[in-house]
Amino acid sequence: MKKIRARDLGIPFEGTPGESNAITDVPGVTVGYSTIIEGATARTGVTIIHPRGRQDYTPVFAGIHSFNGNGEMTGMAWVDEGGFLEGPIGLTNTHSVGIVRDTIIAWQIKNNIQYQPWSLPVVAETADAWLNDMNGFFVKDHHIFHALDSSTSGAIEEGNVGGGTGMMCYEFKGGTGTSSRKLPEKLGGWTVGALAQTNFGRRYQLNIAGVPVGKYFKDDAPVTNGENPFKQDDGSLIVVVATNAPLLPHQLKRMAKRVALGMARTGSIGGNGSGDIFLAFSTANAQAAHPDKQGISQIQTLANDHLDPIFAATVYATEEAIINSMVAAEDMDGHEISVKALPHQELMDIMKKHNRFETIRE
Amino acid sequence: MKKIRARDLGIPFEGTPGESNAITDVPGVTVGYSTIIEGATARTGVTIIHPRGRQDYTPVFAGIHSFNGNGEMTGMAWVDEGGFLEGPIGLTNTHSVGIVRDTIIAWQIKNNIQYQPWSLPVVAETADAWLNDMNGFFVKDHHIFHALDSSTSGAIEEGNVGGGTGMMCYEFKGGTGTSSRKLPEKLGGWTVGALAQTNFGRRYQLNIAGVPVGKYFKDDAPVTNGENPFKQDDGSLIVVVATNAPLLPHQLKRMAKRVALGMARTGSIGGNGSGDIFLAFSTANAQAAHPDKQGISQIQTLANDHLDPIFAATVYATEEAIINSMVAAEDMDGHEISVKALPHQELMDIMKKHNRFETIRE
Amino acid sequence: MKKIRARDLGIPFEGTPGESNAITDVPGVTVGYSTIIEGATARTGVTIIHPRGRQDYTPVFAGIHSFNGNGEMTGMAWVDEGGFLEGPIGLTNTHSVGIVRDTIIAWQIKNNIQYQPWSLPVVAETADAWLNDMNGFFVKDHHIFHALDSSTSGAIEEGNVGGGTGMMCYEFKGGTGTSSRKLPEKLGGWTVGALAQTNFGRRYQLNIAGVPVGKYFKDDAPVTNGENPFKQDDGSLIVVVATNAPLLPHQLKRMAKRVALGMARTGSIGGNGSGDIFLAFSTANAQAAHPDKQGISQIQTLANDHLDPIFAATVYATEEAIINSMVAAEDMDGHEISVKALPHQELMDIMKKHNRFETIRE
Amino acid sequence: MKKIRARDLGIPFEGTPGESNAITDVPGVTVGYSTIIEGATARTGVTIIHPRGRQDYTPVFAGIHSFNGNGEMTGMAWVDEGGFLEGPIGLTNTHSVGIVRDTIIAWQIKNNIQYQPWSLPVVAETADAWLNDMNGFFVKDHHIFHALDSSTSGAIEEGNVGGGTGMMCYEFKGGTGTSSRKLPEKLGGWTVGALAQTNFGRRYQLNIAGVPVGKYFKDDAPVTNGENPFKQDDGSLIVVVATNAPLLPHQLKRMAKRVALGMARTGSIGGNGSGDIFLAFSTANAQAAHPDKQGISQIQTLANDHLDPIFAATVYATEEAIINSMVAAEDMDGHEISVKALPHQELMDIMKKHNRFETIRE
Repeated sequence: MKKIRARDLGIPFEGTPGESNAITDVPGVTVGYSTIIEGATARTGVTIIHPRGRQDYTPVFAGIHSFNGNGEMTGMAWVDEGGFLEGPIGLTNTHSVGIVRDTIIAWQIKNNIQYQPWSLPVVAETADAWLNDMNGFFVKDHHIFHALDSSTSGAIEEGNVGGGTGMMCYEFKGGTGTSSRKLPEKLGGWTVGALAQTNFGRRYQLNIAGVPVGKYFKDDAPVTNGENPFKQDDGSLIVVVATNAPLLPHQLKRMAKRVALGMARTGSIGGNGSGDIFLAFSTANAQAAHPDKQGISQIQTLANDHLDPIFAATVYATEEAIINSMVAAEDMDGHEISVKALPHQELMDIMKKHNRFETIRE
Repeated sequence: MKKIRARDLGIPFEGTPGESNAITDVPGVTVGYSTIIEGATARTGVTIIHPRGRQDYTPVFAGIHSFNGNGEMTGMAWVDEGGFLEGPIGLTNTHSVGIVRDTIIAWQIKNNIQYQPWSLPVVAETADAWLNDMNGFFVKDHHIFHALDSSTSGAIEEGNVGGGTGMMCYEFKGGTGTSSRKLPEKLGGWTVGALAQTNFGRRYQLNIAGVPVGKYFKDDAPVTNGENPFKQDDGSLIVVVATNAPLLPHQLKRMAKRVALGMARTGSIGGNGSGDIFLAFSTANAQAAHPDKQGISQIQTLANDHLDPIFAATVYATEEAIINSMVAAEDMDGHEISVKALPHQELMDIMKKHNRFETIRE
Repeated sequence: MKKIRARDLGIPFEGTPGESNAITDVPGVTVGYSTIIEGATARTGVTIIHPRGRQDYTPVFAGIHSFNGNGEMTGMAWVDEGGFLEGPIGLTNTHSVGIVRDTIIAWQIKNNIQYQPWSLPVVAETADAWLNDMNGFFVKDHHIFHALDSSTSGAIEEGNVGGGTGMMCYEFKGGTGTSSRKLPEKLGGWTVGALAQTNFGRRYQLNIAGVPVGKYFKDDAPVTNGENPFKQDDGSLIVVVATNAPLLPHQLKRMAKRVALGMARTGSIGGNGSGDIFLAFSTANAQAAHPDKQGISQIQTLANDHLDPIFAATVYATEEAIINSMVAAEDMDGHEISVKALPHQELMDIMKKHNRFETIRE
Repeated sequence: MKKIRARDLGIPFEGTPGESNAITDVPGVTVGYSTIIEGATARTGVTIIHPRGRQDYTPVFAGIHSFNGNGEMTGMAWVDEGGFLEGPIGLTNTHSVGIVRDTIIAWQIKNNIQYQPWSLPVVAETADAWLNDMNGFFVKDHHIFHALDSSTSGAIEEGNVGGGTGMMCYEFKGGTGTSSRKLPEKLGGWTVGALAQTNFGRRYQLNIAGVPVGKYFKDDAPVTNGENPFKQDDGSLIVVVATNAPLLPHQLKRMAKRVALGMARTGSIGGNGSGDIFLAFSTANAQAAHPDKQGISQIQTLANDHLDPIFAATVYATEEAIINSMVAAEDMDGHEISVKALPHQELMDIMKKHNRFETIRE
């Protein structure tokens, strides 16, 4: 059965999504998952994003923004310096970043697709330390190869899947969420997609479409050892945004910065313990990686004063991807705690109470 | 007559303000204005913030964040490098940044308060190009000296004053706004204050306390030459945040980053044309500027895991300062256009429609 | 009479210079000066660089690097964010940055060449506080207009001219220096030019072509009030590097970073008091500023693995520009001190002693 | 037999080293190695630096600078954001970064020394792809535990050891090198130490103490498949600098920046392919990690205008650590090539030819 998504509940978001309302609406992008739920303590996984799909290894222009660097994104130094992302992106739990990184290299070697004699894979993480025993190091080589080799385009799973399997968001069950925006032709017709691994926020902060939803929910927040593990605003938010607009690396960095605004729309204040690191890439300009003998490539760039629609799409797709991760997630019992999913009916009731089902104006 | 502020209209904001709900609630901080409204085309001015008041020239620890650097903040290289802000902060229009900068030096020379043989004043700007003729260079030395010499603590003016005189925000009249938060003693008891010079945003984007207010207002947006000057999301937002918490320079940079989240709560997507540059300073650790002969100072730092309340206060005080700038502003006819202030009664009606007057839970 | 330059003395530098061994070897670049030497205390001026000459106002791609931000470069936030430099570059003394900035705007208004309704000029500085009375504010509008309107291509003056008039370097007389490199055709044939305003370094640190020259000179360093004003490694170094290679903004930032390596080759350790801020621009890709209706421009980029020769040229041209500024400078009596120029004959003797006149291998 | 070091050959460096002329001269710092030389293709290893030794897990203030981010340093986002380095530092080859990172976590778990429920270890790399088969993934858990558990203070090995085992520098054999500076008491008496893993540079660029040594050596550079693997300026340089001076995180970032100047003194132009990433930490202010209940710590800071001697020490110790890595290294046959060590006698002859044995003045 197809899962309910936030729009299915009548939540009003800004802008018009693409066909699957997913990062895979950006032509070429594919996503693969390994979901590891075993015994009482393994609740984790791996998410892989192939910027041009599994078969096209051409690097993409990319940019990063570390809004709050209490987290890890390997490979960010080279993305920031060289402007290229040269392989798949991995998302996993904090203590499995290393194995995912090295195994992406092993997969590249096996498939004979290294761009240089060395590889610097991009792997980011959030900490599922409460539902998953991160110290169990449950992510193994075969999980990573599976995620790398099984990626798909079109509609993709959300909620308790892949790297997001054991995550929590605003003290509800979080996980993996996605969304996209398709701009009108007069604004360029570009597509912007976002994929979020959500593991951040205190419940009372939660806003959905501007409604202070978090304040309505009784304190059924998760506890461990008699304590709410969210005394701090720990957690993390990793968001990858993609577009087919021809943005240069410094423009993609600007795009990545806007993810923070989308995060803010859901209520976050950017807690100290939250590793909020964002990556943006563009599938345009494939020829940038295929220069002539003199090293020159013919490429395109979009003027700065045409970026506003792309910035807006980034903000709105991020917001919706985060809420989608929560709407799709399901209750989970795990390592140290049990966590409830965001209850759909109560959410709808609160939205109605605040008159936020109606469409006001587009 | 005391001006109406956003809270007076019943707008619900997060957190508890300080006594004056102003940046001046941070002990020592004073603010001065010069407001220039002359003839048909001069609608501009200067705002000065003295971090420790006019009489105490001890540098403060500071940090900056350029969220979208389509603007100017002189002196930011040294704040970023050295960690100190060494004089008053000036805010004005884009084309008068130079004279304000040099005149602050002249004022320092006159008052014999240079920290080094050279000065690198911090002066930021937003562009009042539509209500004010920026090319008229109306800001003169005496205006700047007046703002420097007339600063006050306690309640301060908002709306069409100082550097904010000719600004527009979300296609309404913008200007200068301020707000503060006083943390509970168990969270440290610190005060956080914000002062915003607001000149950004498209009307349809405007959110107030999460309500999509901007969508309700008929298109009485300003026009010039038959065109809406806001075809782009131009403008700019400058915010200065202050605290008495003992934050180190790298922590103040983190505080400055949170201003972007407060901006996002009012609906902005961070338009390309908007110069969104933020400065944070701490009045603690005065002794950092008074080392012993070996160059050592005894100072304090607040642990990273105690920063969340300060980050939250920064986000919420920024949001309220922006809305305060709009609520306090009044209709203005100027250089090329006429701009309406945000209408209070309609705003209240919209908030009621969305059930956002009640207090839900603190 | 043509002034002696460092190569004329037989100093060996790496690489092959362009025709004039000046930043003006990059086609289009012109440089103008105003030199102010009046009475006993005015020893200052203004240098202007027009990236495409006075007649072509098309923006250039640019990037900045603040190696040690104890200085000012206005406009750097927008260069860093937008990737474009949109007007002439000004260099002057620290306390005249503001007037140079605002007057560049006035000049742009007069010539009707604003790119946006607002301007954010790039003006940088070094402090001539010892030879010049910076608090005299001697730079006036007409000086700035003169420098803007009198720029030339070809061979340009060095030493005590323009913004560099009253500067000191390694406790000798410094000022303005320039140099260039022309790459072999097989390495792209690109030209790289540097212009340095030099005002940094302690004498004992000075290296020339690797020879520890500074250690040989008796202590005839400048004194004021009986003290060497260089107790600290104060001063500043501003360097502008230009190329006609088609570098993107993030690549120009990388180019700007290499200026620090050129500075290091002259012996500097990057003193705390030195504002070492560097700007790089490319005159290629003029069409980047002329997009089609959809905002798209056809541009070129040079592959990252073709950048090494450009990086090397940047390092070597910077090194030579710094030494050129000292070789061309002449003794000066000023506000508080008198400063000697680097003595040519002694320098040649030291170089011979270290067997650094011979050409070893190219 | 004690290995020859650069000073033993009479190479003149600036400044006065500490007792062991090693990073371990900074009290508390210990270094451990695993050196893996097996069969024809394994030439690699792991280096571990414990900032306070194996027994004291208190975090240290730290700062990073990515001069040329064509490399990896995991954990840099959190060092940059939070200002703390919270565990040992690992150095290895590019394709083993992941396993070293995850295994450091495993070691922390085993020793019960996690600072948060999650760990973000700092592991950096250079690519030994020519002497070592990086795709063989030879670094195993037990090697990493050995390096972590065997660290020592005092004199430490240099050359073909630890992470530096299979590295090349300026087309000679490179590896691991170290050096330190002890400041005079009147300049604070602080110690600065550097440890470099060197794998960068083209031979003709090599400068030693300012002498263009690289130009003298006949082309016995390494070849593979009939080609010089150094057609590009690939490689990488990782440098860790330590001090006991009480620097704050933003000051340590400044210290890390000066490493680039030390690198420049050896001739590098910062090639595109070189991952030049630098980390600085201070062992002072242990109490910063032990706040009181209100989150406040009493700490010390050194005034900015006392930093010059520390910056100089950083530059000079870096330069010497790089040269030490080459002087200590020995010829190596490996995976694809054979590489010669820098020949001591010829080096001494060249230095004499350039009159660089004498001591000129201190």
